[in-house]
Formats: sequence, C-alpha cells, structure tokens
Amino acid sequence: MQNSALLMDFYALTMANSYFEQGRQDEIAYFDYFFRRVPDEGGYAVFAGLEQLLDYLENLQFSEQEIAFLQQKQIFSEGFLDYLRHFRFRGDLWAVKEGTAVFPAEPLVVIRAPIIDCTLIEAFLLLTLNHQTLIATKAARIVSVAQGRNVLEFGARRAHGVDAAHFGARAAYIAGVDGTSNVYSDFACGIPALGTMAHAYVQSFDNEYEAFLQYAKTYPDNTVLLVDTYDTLHQGIPNAIRVHREYLAPRGYKLKGIRIDSGDLAYLSIRAREMLDAAGLTETKITVSNSLDEYLIKDLLLQGAKIDSFGVGERLITAKSEPVFGGVYKIVALENAGQIIPKIKLSETLQKTTTPGFKNLWRLYDKNRKAIADVITLHDEIIDSTKPYMLFDPEYTWKTKWVTDFVAEQKLQQWISQGGKQQPIPTLEESRAHCRQELQSLWNEVRRLEKPHGYYVDLSQDLWTLKRHLIERHSGKKE
Amino acid sequence: MQNSALLMDFYALTMANSYFEQGRQDEIAYFDYFFRRVPDEGGYAVFAGLEQLLDYLENLQFSEQEIAFLQQKQIFSEGFLDYLRHFRFRGDLWAVKEGTAVFPAEPLVVIRAPIIDCTLIEAFLLLTLNHQTLIATKAARIVSVAQGRNVLEFGARRAHGVDAAHFGARAAYIAGVDGTSNVYSDFACGIPALGTMAHAYVQSFDNEYEAFLQYAKTYPDNTVLLVDTYDTLHQGIPNAIRVHREYLAPRGYKLKGIRIDSGDLAYLSIRAREMLDAAGLTETKITVSNSLDEYLIKDLLLQGAKIDSFGVGERLITAKSEPVFGGVYKIVALENAGQIIPKIKLSETLQKTTTPGFKNLWRLYDKNRKAIADVITLHDEIIDSTKPYMLFDPEYTWKTKWVTDFVAEQKLQQWISQGGKQQPIPTLEESRAHCRQELQSLWNEVRRLEKPHGYYVDLSQDLWTLKRHLIERHSGKKE
Repeated sequence: MQNSALLMDFYALTMANSYFEQGRQDEIAYFDYFFRRVPDEGGYAVFAGLEQLLDYLENLQFSEQEIAFLQQKQIFSEGFLDYLRHFRFRGDLWAVKEGTAVFPAEPLVVIRAPIIDCTLIEAFLLLTLNHQTLIATKAARIVSVAQGRNVLEFGARRAHGVDAAHFGARAAYIAGVDGTSNVYSDFACGIPALGTMAHAYVQSFDNEYEAFLQYAKTYPDNTVLLVDTYDTLHQGIPNAIRVHREYLAPRGYKLKGIRIDSGDLAYLSIRAREMLDAAGLTETKITVSNSLDEYLIKDLLLQGAKIDSFGVGERLITAKSEPVFGGVYKIVALENAGQIIPKIKLSETLQKTTTPGFKNLWRLYDKNRKAIADVITLHDEIIDSTKPYMLFDPEYTWKTKWVTDFVAEQKLQQWISQGGKQQPIPTLEESRAHCRQELQSLWNEVRRLEKPHGYYVDLSQDLWTLKRHLIERHSGKKE
Repeated sequence: MQNSALLMDFYALTMANSYFEQGRQDEIAYFDYFFRRVPDEGGYAVFAGLEQLLDYLENLQFSEQEIAFLQQKQIFSEGFLDYLRHFRFRGDLWAVKEGTAVFPAEPLVVIRAPIIDCTLIEAFLLLTLNHQTLIATKAARIVSVAQGRNVLEFGARRAHGVDAAHFGARAAYIAGVDGTSNVYSDFACGIPALGTMAHAYVQSFDNEYEAFLQYAKTYPDNTVLLVDTYDTLHQGIPNAIRVHREYLAPRGYKLKGIRIDSGDLAYLSIRAREMLDAAGLTETKITVSNSLDEYLIKDLLLQGAKIDSFGVGERLITAKSEPVFGGVYKIVALENAGQIIPKIKLSETLQKTTTPGFKNLWRLYDKNRKAIADVITLHDEIIDSTKPYMLFDPEYTWKTKWVTDFVAEQKLQQWISQGGKQQPIPTLEESRAHCRQELQSLWNEVRRLEKPHGYYVDLSQDLWTLKRHLIERHSGKKE
C-alpha cells in the first residue's frame, strides 16, 4: 500500500478537531519519543527508522478524497477539515542519528510543533521508529554473537507484510547484517541481495546430482548448492563435491559454497567441513539456516561448528523473542506566550513518571572513546568537558560520581526546522558505519546478551530539579 | 512503499534464470501452501490474505527500471531478462476462502503454473498469507474469550510497519474484531475506526475537569473520556460524572463512555460501574485497554470485571505470544506431456514429509453443520455423501471411523484461471460473515484456548496410497 495521511489513530483526529474548535491551532507543544526497557533484557537498543519519519513529515498532506471521507463522518467541523486541506507539518524535530546505541528513558526524538501537528503524526512516528528500532536491536544482538562471520537476513516470507520485510531488512543492515534475501531492499537501498536455490529446485529434477549439475552450468563462478534435500552427508555433500570434480574443476571453477537448512547444524557443518577439505575444497564456504537466532548461533559456535555464514529468517524479521518495541510518545511541555510550560505525567513508579520539559541528550566518553554515561539535560544546557562533571542517579540521588578527562557529545541533532529539512539525511552506509562505531564505544559488559551491565542514564541537576518540583506540585493535587 | 515486483527472494531469480536457461519456461509445476502447527497450541487457524495475493498476481510485472537493476547484476541471461520484461502470471490458483477455519497439513492454496511463475511468486505469497493468517488466528482467539463484548484493534503504533498496521487490522476484522483505531483501514476497507482521546489531550489542559468539559463541548453526543491520567477513582470518574451532570445532562446528552488504560482493570472497572450506576449513568460504556490479550481478557471476565469493550493493541497486532505463522510453499508435482508427476520431500518424521500430488480439500459436516473432519483428496476425487465414508488417520492408519449422514463440501475454489480472475473476490463483510459461520461450525472442544481437541485432517485412500508409494520409492534411494 502507499502511505496515506490517514494512517493514524482515529483519536488523533478527534483530539485535533477539538483543539481546533478551541482555537488552539497555533499553540506550540513539545513531545518526546522514548522507551522504557530494552527488549530481551538487553543492555542497549539501536535506533532506526528516522529517514522514513522525516520523509513522512515532509510529504504529509491530505487528499481531497481523504477529506471527503472524514467529512462524511459528520463529527469534524468544516473549519477543521479546511485546516487539514492545507495542512503541512510546520514543526521542528531533533533526533539521534540512525544506528545510535540508545537507552531507556532517553529522548530519542523531540518534536516542537503546533499541538495539532504533534497529535496527527503520532501513529506513524511510533510505528516506524518502534518497528525499525526493534529489528535493528535484535539484529545487533545476532551480529554480535556471530564473531565476524557473515549474517544474512532471510526473513521476508515470515515478515508482517511488505513493509516489514523491506524496512526490517533495512534496519538489520544498519545494525550490521551483511545482506538480505529481499531483492527489493537491494534495488531500493543497495543492501546486497543474496540467495541461490530452494529445495523445490532440487526436487524439480530427477535426482540431486542433475539439479546441482544444471545449477553449476548456469552459475559456474557462483555455485552454491543446497545440500539437505535428501540426505546431507550421504547424498548432498558427495553430489556437490562430484559436481565440483566433474564439471567445475575441469573448467577452472571452484565450488563456491554449500548451504545446510535442516538437521543438527553443529554436527553437519563439522562433517561437511571435513568432507570438503578432504576433497581439496578448503575455500568452499558453509552457510547454515533454519530458525536461527542469537542463542542458537552462540551455541553452534560454542560447539565448534564450522560455519562461514548464518542465514537468519523469522526470528530476526519478527524479533520473535520479543516482537514489540515499547517506544512511546508523550507530551512534555506547552508554550504560552513564548514561555515553556513543562508537563508531567505521574505514575505509581518513578520510572513510569515522564520527565518534563524541552530536553537534550549528551553522552560522555572517556579518552579511549568508551561511553561512560548519558545525561539528559534541559535543551539549552551545555556540558563543559573542561571541568569535572558530577553524575548522579535520578532515582537514588545519593549515588554520585565525578567524571573528569571526558568528551561530551550532544546526541540530538536538529533535522527539521519549521517543517523544512535542516540537513541531509545520512546514507544507509553512513548509518551502518555510525552503528559500528557506536557499538564499539560500548563496554562489552553493556553489550553482552545475559545480564548486561546497566548503562548510566542520568538527569542534569537542572532537569532533576524541574522534575522534582513538578512531582511535588502535582502529587495529591485534586484536579 | 508501493508493491514492487522485486519484493521477492533473490534465489527465486537465480532459480528462475536457471530454469529458463534449461528451456523449462513452459514446464508446469504444482505448489501447495500449507502450515504444520497452529500458533499458541491452538486448535485451528483462520485463513486470510487471499485478496492481496490475488491482486498481486493480477498486477505482477517488472518495470524497465527493475529489469535494468537485474541486468547490472551480470548473472541473468538476456533471454531471461527479456522473458521477465513480458512476464505476467499465467497460472491457475485454488484457495480456501478468507475467514475459513483451517488446520495443519491442509492445502490452503494450490498453484498450477509454469515453474518460473511458481518460483517468482513465493515470497509475496508466503508473507501475505502468513501475516494475515497469523493475525486473524490471534484475533479469533481474543474475540472468542470476550463473550460477545466489543473487541477493538488498537495496535497501529506497535505494528511492524504501515502494511502490518493496515492488513493486520483487516485480518483482525475478518476474524471478528469490531473496529480499529486505524483511520486508513476505515478509509480503504470500511473497517469502523474508533477512538477519542489520549493522555496528552488531558495533560494539555490546566486540569482534568477542564479537558473533559472541552471534549464534551466538541462531541456532546459522543463523549468518551479517558479517566486514568491522574487518579481513576478519585479524580477521573468523578470529573467525568461532573461533566455529565454539569454540561451534558442539562443539554439533553448523556456521557457515552469512559476508558481506563492502566491500573487493576478488574477492580477499577467494577468500582467504575458502581460509581456510574450510582450517578444514574447505567448506559455509559466502560472500555479498557493496556497490553490485553486472550489470557488477560479471560481472566478479567472470570474476576467479574464490568467491561463493555476491550481495546487490544500490541499483543494482537504483532501476535506477540507467537509472532510467526509458519506457512510454507512446497512443490508437489510437475507435469510432463500432460501427465502429473507427483513430487515428495522426505523428512525424518511423517509430519514433515510433504504430501505429493495435485489435491483438493473437503470438509464433512454433520446434520447440525458441525464439522466432523477434513479430507485431503486428489484433485478430481469426489466424496459422495450418499454413501458411508471411511476416515482413517494418515499416521495411525488402523484408527478408522465410518461417517454417515453427512454433507461433504469442497473447501478449495478456483480463483484464477490462466492468469485471469475466475470469480469476484468476496467483500470484507462477506469474509467476516463467512468466518463467523466457520467458527460456529467448530465444536467448542476444538475452539478452546487450552489443550483443544485435535481436529481430524485425513487423507483419502487414493492420496494415501500415492504418498506411501512415493515414500517407498524414495526411501534409501541414492540420488
């Protein structure tokens, strides 16, 4: 389907119409996008989806057909419908770059816009960022355990629709996956598309040898054979070696690879390596696939599996272990006559209480470019790295730490100013390179799969004071 | 994104090019779409996504830009690229209707087409059917436990992209959900879109009462208020009642509903009902939301919660408990000079061994229109309901049962003949009505959430004989 302005929650329209009827269409609001916990109890997430959000905001407008549809609902005022007819996003947007390692509670996207603009864009903003950040985060975990071996995204057939297949491949590529099965993602974004044959190809011949031979004839310099249709060790690999010996080698070619898609991948890959090596095929690569994820890959490598590439399908493209990224979009301030009025939503726990105000996000690095901590500040605060800086836990404020000899970097950048793009969007390769640097800047203790070390995300003194002040003002107050 | 012909796995193209190079472009193949187990250990799945598949097949063609992209890969022959340039799907397609209750191992879609056509359409076929069938199946479970109460799909913000949001809403609607938050799904398909306000709306006012009052002024005949922004029982509900009393009632309106989005929904809904009833608001509806699924809804109702509508978000739109529907697409036959040559893929277990041949699917109903069993037959077999019919388990063949006094119905219908649509696609409302009938035809023992009774899916004598014959022929055979 094509993007439609109507891809939004109905309540966005009822709220927007109500704001309009109250004459609030020029009132400025501030909204933050953030999340509360990392999926799979991981130590970090990888932010992705910003390019699609920026494109959406640049192009968002309502067609006459869409306006007519809303009109026949008979609940929206003519004035509001006319407002929508001329609607363009007029706000400002700050966000971290795609590929950035991010942590709970941090403002990853900050929107300053008329409250109607803020309201209308919610569903698209959330679904795009939640989806791509989910898949990028999962992919980073999988790539991290593959220890430099190739990881290929093979999940299109189990993705939740065409978008999920393509943008999932995109997010996975940012996070370090090396290629995809999805040709469209190569066509549209230059993500290398890969693949050779399915079982059906082998079955469509009278026997496996004939199938392999015909494939080798079509692709002599790129012969990768799926060896598990009948019996991997007794038929598949011997037939592959025979095709190499009888057809490829005499013509100066080499068997490029084999793929194993079922069975005990640790055992089969070790035996396959022995058989290939014994036939002199020491450079023939072994790819495995079949419901892989970070846990299975880690386990295969611990068992000494001889694998060059992992094809990862459904468990990556759906983030099967935890298929929801719980990013939220919350109002944090309004403007009144140019004054910022911070807003808070209290909750039973401090973690679920929103942090009010127009904010910025800083990361402090040590001299080896390892990340020490993130600090959420008020928007115009500057962290001066020439002076020692005191970190403190926003919940247990007696936990303090002085940092010296650090570099402070602002993580939020402005991408849209009054509806117009402020700077070019990084290329996919740039986002991928950025992600690699970001992950390198994290300590292994933060990156590990099991019980990672909690990364510090603190509030500046000024922001903490503001938050405490608002909590005290609202607590127990009868509305 | 728009649908692209290149939304396919790269291996489809390498295989297709190889078939073409072998001169096999007119060779006819048969492929089945089926699945092996129901997600969440459920007793049945609900088939969905056919309309999108039929549209795709009708419109599938390669643009010059796409051909040029493939050309620069330098692995496809000019002849093949020219073939793609003129490619249109030329095959036949049989499928069960959307909304049909379906079971493991059944051919849900049968394709008869040139082997290249069969190969190129795999990824789109799988992702569309797997996604929508996944969500329809999950939605049917959720609707079944709501015992006639409204179930609303509220998940767009956590969907895996725009397609997942829209087609997920579509699939959920087929399976019995009553509405969606997603306006586009109303615009495009007529699924009723619903919603009122978010916490941000309430927070954007100085106090909750003012927010409620302004909302009531905009929508006096449709005032549904979100009552949990500050304190549901001590502020939210009293403020809602006050707006009714002070603003709505004097003008002849009634408070239509409240929504509770956090806290103990059982307790809060019971107290809310009491408070509303005590204020004379016995018709005011209570909607709840917040990470609901079939288990939580069942539990809420067991606790006596007073709820009229359930807003179900992330756990439905991602099928969180099991986000992968493992439908597969397997070759089952080739044609040679008009003769069908059945194909089998053996596996270690009989369940994973494919059933060969060009097939049909029948359902036997008793005289009360309760489904007794499904029988997979050869394509041209007829089950004659005037005679007793012997069912037998395809694995434990000594388990037999004679059925009499039944109605036999073919479940597969032909939708495409030689590339052209054969019959009109049912409307969404027709598919939804069909689903309702289908679910009514299942015994409660098959429909229950926990340890459902396994529904019988048997093979006809002829099909079983064919399968056994092929297993014997292939077993132990050196290829």
